[in-house]
Order: sequence, then C-alpha cells, then structure tokens
Amino acid sequence: MKKIPVILDCDPGIDDAMMLTLAFARPELDIRLVTTEAGNLSQDKTTYNALSFLTYIKQDVEVARGLDAPMFRTLEVAEDIHGEGGLGNVKWAEPTLQASERSAVNAIRETLLSSDEPIIIVATGPLTNVAALLFAHPEVKPKIKMISWMGGAAVGGNMSTTAEFNAFVDPHAVELVFRSGLPIVMSGLDVTHKAYITLDEMVRLSKSGTPFAEKVAEMMKFYTFTQSQTPFHTPHFEEQIRVHDVCAVAYLVEPELFQGGDYFVEVELEGRLTAGSTIVDYVGKTGKAPNVKVLHTVNREGFIELFFSAVNTIGKQLV
Amino acid sequence: MKKIPVILDCDPGIDDAMMLTLAFARPELDIRLVTTEAGNLSQDKTTYNALSFLTYIKQDVEVARGLDAPMFRTLEVAEDIHGEGGLGNVKWAEPTLQASERSAVNAIRETLLSSDEPIIIVATGPLTNVAALLFAHPEVKPKIKMISWMGGAAVGGNMSTTAEFNAFVDPHAVELVFRSGLPIVMSGLDVTHKAYITLDEMVRLSKSGTPFAEKVAEMMKFYTFTQSQTPFHTPHFEEQIRVHDVCAVAYLVEPELFQGGDYFVEVELEGRLTAGSTIVDYVGKTGKAPNVKVLHTVNREGFIELFFSAVNTIGKQLV
Amino acid sequence: MKKIPVILDCDPGIDDAMMLTLAFARPELDIRLVTTEAGNLSQDKTTYNALSFLTYIKQDVEVARGLDAPMFRTLEVAEDIHGEGGLGNVKWAEPTLQASERSAVNAIRETLLSSDEPIIIVATGPLTNVAALLFAHPEVKPKIKMISWMGGAAVGGNMSTTAEFNAFVDPHAVELVFRSGLPIVMSGLDVTHKAYITLDEMVRLSKSGTPFAEKVAEMMKFYTFTQSQTPFHTPHFEEQIRVHDVCAVAYLVEPELFQGGDYFVEVELEGRLTAGSTIVDYVGKTGKAPNVKVLHTVNREGFIELFFSAVNTIGKQLV
Amino acid sequence: MKKIPVILDCDPGIDDAMMLTLAFARPELDIRLVTTEAGNLSQDKTTYNALSFLTYIKQDVEVARGLDAPMFRTLEVAEDIHGEGGLGNVKWAEPTLQASERSAVNAIRETLLSSDEPIIIVATGPLTNVAALLFAHPEVKPKIKMISWMGGAAVGGNMSTTAEFNAFVDPHAVELVFRSGLPIVMSGLDVTHKAYITLDEMVRLSKSGTPFAEKVAEMMKFYTFTQSQTPFHTPHFEEQIRVHDVCAVAYLVEPELFQGGDYFVEVELEGRLTAGSTIVDYVGKTGKAPNVKVLHTVNREGFIELFFSAVNTIGKQLV
Ligand SMILES: [Ca+2]
Ligand SMILES: [Ca+2]
Ligand SMILES: [Ca+2]
Ligand SMILES: [Ca+2]
Repeated sequence: MKKIPVILDCDPGIDDAMMLTLAFARPELDIRLVTTEAGNLSQDKTTYNALSFLTYIKQDVEVARGLDAPMFRTLEVAEDIHGEGGLGNVKWAEPTLQASERSAVNAIRETLLSSDEPIIIVATGPLTNVAALLFAHPEVKPKIKMISWMGGAAVGGNMSTTAEFNAFVDPHAVELVFRSGLPIVMSGLDVTHKAYITLDEMVRLSKSGTPFAEKVAEMMKFYTFTQSQTPFHTPHFEEQIRVHDVCAVAYLVEPELFQGGDYFVEVELEGRLTAGSTIVDYVGKTGKAPNVKVLHTVNREGFIELFFSAVNTIGKQLV
Repeated sequence: MKKIPVILDCDPGIDDAMMLTLAFARPELDIRLVTTEAGNLSQDKTTYNALSFLTYIKQDVEVARGLDAPMFRTLEVAEDIHGEGGLGNVKWAEPTLQASERSAVNAIRETLLSSDEPIIIVATGPLTNVAALLFAHPEVKPKIKMISWMGGAAVGGNMSTTAEFNAFVDPHAVELVFRSGLPIVMSGLDVTHKAYITLDEMVRLSKSGTPFAEKVAEMMKFYTFTQSQTPFHTPHFEEQIRVHDVCAVAYLVEPELFQGGDYFVEVELEGRLTAGSTIVDYVGKTGKAPNVKVLHTVNREGFIELFFSAVNTIGKQLV
Repeated sequence: MKKIPVILDCDPGIDDAMMLTLAFARPELDIRLVTTEAGNLSQDKTTYNALSFLTYIKQDVEVARGLDAPMFRTLEVAEDIHGEGGLGNVKWAEPTLQASERSAVNAIRETLLSSDEPIIIVATGPLTNVAALLFAHPEVKPKIKMISWMGGAAVGGNMSTTAEFNAFVDPHAVELVFRSGLPIVMSGLDVTHKAYITLDEMVRLSKSGTPFAEKVAEMMKFYTFTQSQTPFHTPHFEEQIRVHDVCAVAYLVEPELFQGGDYFVEVELEGRLTAGSTIVDYVGKTGKAPNVKVLHTVNREGFIELFFSAVNTIGKQLV
Repeated sequence: MKKIPVILDCDPGIDDAMMLTLAFARPELDIRLVTTEAGNLSQDKTTYNALSFLTYIKQDVEVARGLDAPMFRTLEVAEDIHGEGGLGNVKWAEPTLQASERSAVNAIRETLLSSDEPIIIVATGPLTNVAALLFAHPEVKPKIKMISWMGGAAVGGNMSTTAEFNAFVDPHAVELVFRSGLPIVMSGLDVTHKAYITLDEMVRLSKSGTPFAEKVAEMMKFYTFTQSQTPFHTPHFEEQIRVHDVCAVAYLVEPELFQGGDYFVEVELEGRLTAGSTIVDYVGKTGKAPNVKVLHTVNREGFIELFFSAVNTIGKQLV
C-alpha cells in the first residue's frame, strides 16, 4: 500500500492527544514528524505533553518544538478547558522520547524539502509554526500537498462570540496560511460541533476492554465540566464531548464521512472584540475565488466508529 | 384601559410595514409618533413608504423624517432584500399624509418631554435617530421607559457573517444606545430567525378574506426570492418568511411569547470585516453587568396567530 | 460698528481662560453664550472654572454646561498640564454667576435658531458639544458662519506622538465636525506652537500694572513646569509659554496675523496608538476637496501685543 | 585591522545605491551578503538594480533575492520618487553579477549561523526579509550584533502624514523586528531629513573628477523633482537632497557624527489612516523599557564629507 506522508503540528491538549491516537492507529498514514504549537498551553507544556503521550503509546517519532508565541498577540492559553497540565489532569507517561534538536520550522522545512512526494500537514493548534514557515520559506510550497487544519468557524465562536480558539490565538498566522495559495481544508466549529460523543458512548468506550480506552475516557470526561449550556447553543451542548482535532485526521482517512464546500475565507486581524474571526463568505458577497474547503457536515456515527476503533487499535498494541 | 404610549422609529422596508400593522392593530398601544430611519432604503424612500403605508391603512399620525445617514459609515441600503421601492414592489397608496415639519430628533425629544409618563421607543431600523437624541439630549432619558429594538445577533449575521443588517448600517449608533443606561430589549436574529412563517401559512393568510391580507402576502412573498439556503443555515431557511421587525412590537403586547436573558452586549466599531457585530457576552467572560435583554426564543404558533390576527383587524377596518 | 456674534465653547483650562480674556476684551465681539466641554478637566471642574473666571472678570453671560463625556472614548483629563483645579492652582473668584438651566447643546441650538444672522462658534476644547449638536440638529447649520477651533496638528502631537490633546479626547466629535460641510478654521499645534510667550515677556506682562495681569502671569507660569524639552522639539521648547486657545479668537479679530491653507483633513478613529490624529493632506495625496483651513504661521510679535493689550484692557476694567 | 562583518538588506532605489557606495568604499567593513527587499520598487526591479549597480562598481558579492511582498499589506512602490526604473532614470550596467540561488532569508540565516562572530545587519528598505527570518528562526539571534535600519520617524512622515515609507510598506515587519530583543538603531526621518545635500554641494560633487561622481550626481538630482515644499516642512525642503539610506551605514563607520537616544518604539498596525507610524515614546509616557536607539541629530558637514569621500574612493577604483 502506498502510504500518505503527513506531518502533525499540534498543541496537546486533550483533543490533540485524541488526534494523535487516530493518526498513529492508521496504517495508511506515514507520520514523518510531530511538531508542537503554543496554544492550549505554553510551548513547554504542549511539548511535554506530546512527548509524554507519544511515550505512552510507544511511538518513536521526531517531535520538534515550535515557536513560543503568536506572531503579534500575547499568548492566551486554555487551561480552563484542558486542565492545568493540559490533558484533563490525566498523567500519561514520564517521557523517554526527547524533543528534536531541530526547531519545528526547520524540521518541517527539511522534512518537506527532502521528501520525494508532497506531504500533508495536519495542524490542530494555532498556525504559528506553519505560517512562519510559509512566510519565510515559500520554496517549500511545492512540497505541501494540503493543509488539514482544525480551527475557525463560519458561524459562532468558542473563544469570543465570533472567534474559534485556534484562530483567536494567532489570527495573523491563519491569514498567512489562508493566503498561501495551498489547498486548505478547514475543520471549524461548524463541523466539529457535530462530531461529538455522548456520555453514554463514552461509558461504552471506557468499558471497551483496554486500559488505554479507560484512560482516554477519563481524560475526555474533563471536557464535560468545562462547557456551559446557554440558550444560544444547541440543546444538550454541555453533555456532548467534542474531539475537534480528530476531524482533521479523520478527513484524511475517511473523507467520505464529511461534507464541505469551497469558500473564500479571510480573518479579522483588527477589531477590539472580534479579532480572529474567520469570515467564510458562504453567500458569495465578496466575489473572490475560494481559497479554503470548509467542512460543515459529518456522519457522526461513522466518525465515532472510526475514532473508537482507533482507540481500540492503540489500546491493543499497548497490552 | 390604560394605554401604553409608544414611538415607532422604522425604515420601511417590508417587515417594518408588518410591524406598523401589528402596532396600529393593537388597541392597548397609544402611538404618539412615527419616525423614519435611513437603512433598508434611503431616507427619502423610507419616509415615502411610511407615509404611503399609513395612508393605505388610514392612520393619521405624525410622521417625522429622520437623519439622512449613519454617524460615521456610508449608508448601505438593502434594496436587494426589500425591492427597489422597498415594499417588495407592492404599491400601497399615494400618500395623503404629509411628513411633519419637525425633524425626527426634535419630534421624539418634544414628544418625550411633553409626556406625563415615560414612553416606549420601538426601533426597527438602524438606531441613528435614537442615538443622536440620546447623545445630544441626555435630559430625555427619564422619559424613556424602554427601547425595544429589532437588530443585532448573538450568533451569526445576515449582512456580514457576523453582523446583522441594522447594526451593520450604524454600529456607532447601536453602541451609544447600548451604553445609554436605559432598559433595552434586543430582538436579534437569534429570535427573529425563529419567528418565521411558512409558505403554507402565507397561502392561508392570503386567503383570509380581506384585500389587505392579500396585499400583505404578496409583499411578503418577495422575501422568498432573496434568501439563499446554505449549509450554514438551518434547513428550509430559504422558504421561511421572517418578519423580523414584528417581534419588537409583539414583545410589548404579548411578552409571554418570548424568552430572553440579560447580557452585557457591546458593538464592534472597528474591524475590517466585522464592524457592527453585536457581541453578546452569553458565557459571562467580561464580568460586566448586563445592559440589554436579549431575546432568544419565541412561541412561533402564538406569534403567527398574533400577527395574522393583526392583519385581520386592519384588513376589516379598511373594508 | 457691526459686532461679530460668537459663541464660546471651552474647557477652562489655563489657555481657555486666556482665550476668554481676549474675547471679552474685544469690543467688536458680541458674545452670546459660553458653553463648557469636559476635556482638560471633568465637566464639573470646567464649568466651575468658567463661572469662577467670568465672575472675576465681571462678565454677565449665559454659561451652559456641556456633555459629561466624549462620544465613545473614556474621558482623559490633563490635570498634569493645567493643575488639579485646572487654572494652574490660581484661585480666581467664588462664582456668583450661575450655570444656565439650558444644556450646552440646547443653548447653542436655540441661540443659533433665534439669531437673525449667522454666528461664529469658537471652540477651544474637545468638540463633543458641537458634534452632538451638528449630528442631531443639521437644521442649525445655516446659522453657523464658521467654527474656529483650537485643536489638531498636521505634524506631531502633544498627547500622543501623533495626536493633539483636544482631538485625542474625542476623535469622533472632531470627525463629525470636519465632515459637517461648515467653514472650519483649525488652529492646531502647527501654529499654536509658534504663538508662544517667552519668560522675559511674561515678566513684562506681570509688571504691566494691574493685579489681573499679575494673576494671569502667575497662572501661565504653571505651564513651564509641565513641558519637557526633548530632542524632537525645537530648542527652548520647555521655556516657551503657549496659549494655544487664544489663537482661535485672535484669528477672528486680527486674521492678518495668521497664515494658513485649505486642506482635506480627516481624523484617525481607530488605531491602537494613533486615534485622534488629524491627518492633514498637505501634499494633496487624497485628491479630496479641502474641508478645513489649517493655520500654520503666526506673526508672534503681533499676537503677543494683541494678547497683552487684552490683559491690559480687562485689567483696567477691573480696577 | 579587525573588520566589521555586515549584511546589507536594501531595495535600490536611489539612496540605497548611495548606501552601497559608502559601504563598499569603506575598508573596515566586511560585506558578507547583499539581499533585496520589495519596496521602492518590485522585487524584480530592486534585484535587477542591485545587480546592475554592483556590476558597475565592480563588486563581487552574493546578492540574494528577497520576499516578493509585505507580510499583510499590498506592496506600494515609490516609482514617483525613484523613477520608473528606480535609479532616477540613470542606467548603470547590464548585470554580469547573477542573483544567488539562495533566497534572502536562507542566505542571511546561513551566513549568520556559519559566522564565528556576530554580524551587523544594515537594512535600508522595508524589513520583510529580516522580520521573516527573526520570526521563523529565533535561533539566529545570538549571531546578530545589531540591526541598523533606515526607516520610521518620531515626528512626521513622508508616505502618510504620520508614516515613513519603509515602515508604511510593511508595518508588521517593523513591529516584529522592534520586538525581537536585538539592538536596533533607527535612522528615521528625524535624522535623515537633517542629512541633506544642497544643490551647490551636488554641483561640487559632480565636478569632483570621476565619471562615477557625475553619474551619482545625475541620479540624485532626480530627487529634487519629487519633493514639494509645503508650509509644514522646513524652508528649502524641496531643494535639499536627502540620501536617507546612507545614514544607516554612516552610523557604523562614524558613529560620532550622530546623536540619538534610547526609546520605547512601537508601530501602529491598525488605523485607517495611520498604519505604519512608528510611535517613539520620547516623553516616557508608556513606562516601557527602551527597545530602539533613535537617531535625531547629525553633523551634516561631517556626513557630507564622509559620503563625498566614498564617492571619490569608488570613482577612482573604477577609473
Ligand atoms: Ca489543538
Ligand atoms: Ca426595519
Ligand atoms: Ca482648551
Ligand atoms: Ca531604501
């Protein structure tokens, strides 16, 4: 089988860990590199978490530490959502894996340039590393097949009323990536809010037979303490466990689970209250050519099956 | 019966005409003044439409012409939504009613100051007149009981991805009103998108037995050509006829049809892409005291009955 | 002699008091009204100061209290420049004059509308009152002959690097006035920085023979403690006593002392660091028609003579 | 003699060519690399001009082509100031020198990392290349001794009323550089407007005896057609020939010609009218630690002598 070469850029983070789970469970992916973003947590913590989780799931992969801060804005982390340690207060492993001597930007650049075939970048944090690379090194573009990003939202945010967290943290980075001319798939809140797991399903997962699945369920339950129901959310919002980042990999391995459309998207860089809003021109007002495929619909049952099966696969590998 | 004194500030506009229908159908309202805003159309056109529609429905009320343009932004009208003439290409009457010699700001100010009791202002356009009044004449505030405004949105816009039309046209005016310290009820898209009429119901209305109802139905059908279905809207969005402005009066006469909550709301005044977004702090991030009651839910059946009954009442008066 | 009818809108403030001195010393001016702005100090303090100073110089004129705060920005006062009380810690008189029952906006409006001839508005503070009036009441425009404003700067600010104080306090007000279509003369820092008095001249003034002149000199000396010399100012900047506001009246009574040109001027309303900058298009980049006469040059000797002579006139009237 | 290693990043441009003249005339400089910015002209033209001019003055140095466009803003060139070709319509040489195969960012990075000692970067265009490098590759910082930049202004701009050209073209790049923590010397308009050459001095230069000097004088005279006198400039502004960029090298070789101070400087990134203004906190309002040495004064005679002597040196080498 011809494998799909990928680079994973993430800020673990609960759902980033779940994204890693799906990615490393899938035989069709050839994971060349993992890089870390400051976002959900500081760069120190996301790098530690990547190393800790990958140590636990026994993956020997290069992990390159990314940039410490967004382009212009001050870093705002989300420890209320992910727990102070960032993985829902679940301890995975004391890392035996060590961070690479290469910076994320250098590692991604060299990995791309030395590859025979174009690589897909999966990004599930703020896009700081990716934007820095694309801006400083346009020469890598022919080696990037696609960027599959979890972030943004066409309608409604979660960090501010209008902005999604990853886009809010580093709006300038998102804008640079969106303007890059590369194929981009955006798994924003529009689709990730539909890719939820119920509490009952979570119980089923935790009882699925491996210690890993139990730990995963425990970590993910942390989420349910952090989202509040409001009249502006769909009913039962607070009981739905969203594993946003998983979508960015799921789209690679089972694209038929998703529906989306091609739109012109740009990012609000200014604004006192709205910076980081991703403005998806879904009614065609701007007349500008689409630059992003925005996912909006997911087959939830298929998605859960895909994810649970990945937890199962990794869980069994570890026994 | 003690009547409720009200001033109606509007930019007719299809749904403004429907708002006027409900207002003049209700015996418990004592309508002291109608004023016009530039918004859906130019000031010339909204004033003409107000005079034309009120002539048709035989209401003898002072109509005072408002300010010609928003505070800072250039006026953007919505002739694509309301028709070039603004009432869905339906002709009502050659006006016999004439515009007042008083400007809207002067007329509202003098009406308020000469009233024994506080008055409710119903505003269903951009808030330019109201903001000008409140800013230049804080002395009127004790005479304003409440401002019931159709405009804004907590989640998702209709003019831009994040901004509702009335707020988009004059964001500075909305901000001045929201900061005024007066009681404000905001019927934003959150609730007005739920206050729709189906095509079947529209057929029922048009056959309800008066020429007025027929003409109303004809005017409202124009809407169905102007809204497009997208994957980011609820299904059947394009077939639902929304009479947004009607909510602002409906809330006065049957408040029990609506649910809402008190929130801190402010307006994005800057931003390249997001100006006019009303930022409703529904998760309590700002820690600031609520300044606006934001409606989010409506009993649709009750709302339609209220509206249809008003059309009936006016229709019979005209026969 | 045909007198020139004027309204004085000010925020005393040391140089506002000097402006009042010149205005009331000149027989050719018919001062119909004095109104107060929040600016150098809170509205309470500027109104008190206006009443106190006018009581001292024995002028019986209507003083109408203005709006409490800028349109959108939070009021920032300049007590470091004018002293906590606002008149350089000089006590003038316990006011016997009382504030009008009319608000500044109402008083200006009614004064204008009841005048047979157009009136000149001299404004030497933020333009909040004037902007509120013009925005809410365009009907007064034919009764305004000209607005002579002290404020703004083509090159270099004093509140921020790019913004002058009065413009910084309420940029939106300045923009509304500049867009009004009325004839506007702007005495910005470009000219007022050239309208200074040396320390030696100040000594001469204080010894000119009246107690009033002594008190004036004492008040003005306060300024010399508040401005610092930097390499970006002209030499001896810190020893030059600027009576900025006086220019706005001086231009009315001896226009031949000044030179200026007609330019398109607009105001930065946004910007994290530059709000309130008045952008004078002196190289004609915008291609837009001039809307403001911007003064840039003054005959300093003539200006000082005019001012000293006014102090003398008032001083002798009081003996 | 221990030489000073430098990298020259420029956008020739008339005064960039003069900067190169001074740099290559000075034996104490060890020029490791020349890189080009899009700015005065498109990247194609600035690279061509660098190659053409360096060919003419017979310097064999690596010239690496830089990024094509500013970070976020659309490139605005200054062909009105520098001539369509960018060197005042003077033709230097058909380039025999060829552009490097390395991009500017890669060439600077590798030059820095392979150097035993820290290098000074002289930048006389927009800072796009330098910012991209610093943002993507913080690892190079220990190898940068100082950045000597021509750009910005404390008081008054030349592109807009408040912004200098290089800062206006790419404000985000300037901000990234200013925040980098590296030692920065800013030769802004404050000092470069004082580093002018009179028409008489230009005649003297052109007659100084080498064909090169004649060509230089011819090129520089182009400037005198492009600046207009206004009342907001110092007298004779339009006859003064400013070789702004030369200051950035002159400061390296004869720092005693200049005076400056350490200030906190930041860049306006937003604003409708003021983006790119460099806000020099020369009165200490922010309370923030200085991050830039801002030059404000120059010994003009010494400066001219330095520059003329360099023209002489190169001119004689070419004979
Ligand atoms: Ca993430
Ligand atoms: Ca309306
Ligand atoms: Ca003043
Ligand atoms: Ca240059």
